[in-house]
Amino acid sequence: MRLADAADAETLPRFRAGGGIHNKIEGEGFDPVTEADRAAERAIVSAIGARFPDHAILGEEFGSTGGGDREWIIDPIDGTRAFITGIPVWGTLIGYYVAGRARLGIMSQPFTGERFYADGTATFASRAGQLPQPLQVRKTTELGDAVLFSTSPRLFEGSMLDRFEALEDAARLTRFGTDCYAFAMLASGHVDLVVESGLKPYDIAALIPLVEQAGGVVATFSGDRPERGGDVIAAATPELLEAASAILTE
Amino acid sequence: MRLADAADAETLPRFRAGGGIHNKIEGEGFDPVTEADRAAERAIVSAIGARFPDHAILGEEFGSTGGGDREWIIDPIDGTRAFITGIPVWGTLIGYYVAGRARLGIMSQPFTGERFYADGTATFASRAGQLPQPLQVRKTTELGDAVLFSTSPRLFEGSMLDRFEALEDAARLTRFGTDCYAFAMLASGHVDLVVESGLKPYDIAALIPLVEQAGGVVATFSGDRPERGGDVIAAATPELLEAASAILTE
Repeated sequence: MRLADAADAETLPRFRAGGGIHNKIEGEGFDPVTEADRAAERAIVSAIGARFPDHAILGEEFGSTGGGDREWIIDPIDGTRAFITGIPVWGTLIGYYVAGRARLGIMSQPFTGERFYADGTATFASRAGQLPQPLQVRKTTELGDAVLFSTSPRLFEGSMLDRFEALEDAARLTRFGTDCYAFAMLASGHVDLVVESGLKPYDIAALIPLVEQAGGVVATFSGDRPERGGDVIAAATPELLEAASAILTE
Repeated sequence: MRLADAADAETLPRFRAGGGIHNKIEGEGFDPVTEADRAAERAIVSAIGARFPDHAILGEEFGSTGGGDREWIIDPIDGTRAFITGIPVWGTLIGYYVAGRARLGIMSQPFTGERFYADGTATFASRAGQLPQPLQVRKTTELGDAVLFSTSPRLFEGSMLDRFEALEDAARLTRFGTDCYAFAMLASGHVDLVVESGLKPYDIAALIPLVEQAGGVVATFSGDRPERGGDVIAAATPELLEAASAILTE
């Protein structure tokens, strides 16, 4: 919570404030990073270092430091494209691994005043003042009943795109453009399935325990543990994960 | 403002509450409508009728009533798919036409506590307590600098999809999945271009004056007035609208 507070203090004042956007791959496309990303990661790293100087840290903006089996994995702003376009579906992601396994995680969205976190129990807290509530996935097992989320169909190419479109056809409803918020809504029981391609560890670290502790499942397309990212499926139930995986790896 | 208050009182308590979702086209696909849609439209229609009994009303859920040249156009929940999946980018849209021309409009998003409205001046007000702020589009004139929004690439088919993809390639960045929120962000100066296909009048009525009074432009692909919907482009500048229109109607 303190790490999220530190990040919120850097991100929220810069949201919709028209601050500097840098292109990380100038000349090859557009991969934006903002001052808010960098300042938030710095604030989180500094707070971790002060309390746990021997823990390893992997951050999106500044890379990895330290070693050992305790590791913090940080995406200061997941959904930078949402951030720079004013849409409040970005989040600060902070995950914690022990011996390579995701154990704790938080997604903080300071504009809406929401936090989704996993500290043994998946929980939702809002600034609006209700008591924190436990999160629970839905029990959807059939693809035909499932609401599917993905950041963008443009993340898939060639035969992978064909398979993703087959999954779309099988699902009840598909929505794009939500980044980490999709996983928070899966843990909250509002959607059933999230499929993402080419994730980095910091895109998923905080979200694995959130989904798992809410009763859901997360795996790579090939069924491996998702801690190092890659092509990832998160689902409300093992049946749904299996059904999606069968189509995506056909 | 009072009409939006009446709608908010029906929508917000039902957001993320797991209430009833009905499929309007059962057997042919999935077109969801919720109790919140119906209750909000009823509340708005009732409040208009009490004050302006001789005005015409066109609503998404209950159709049209009345005649004459004063017309209210209502989408109780634009972005029903966002609403039913817990994502706060839906909005209540209320527009007002005089002799077929959009004059006033409001988009209300009660979960984030935001209102974007046009009453002669495009304005943003938030529950967070800052003073209302005037809205102003950006001055982007080149497609290569433009951020493009659209609800879903699945709204385009065949050669239209090819032309939309050509527009995506020309733009700096494309995002999907935002419905009315995209127009609000255009009016707010955070995005440059919104392209939507097959809009109904109630999808766009409230948003036309919002974009226009913020300094932007809205037209159909063929350059006509957008009050009756259809395929619509909204842009920060006339130059950008022209450039997008050239690609989309090639």
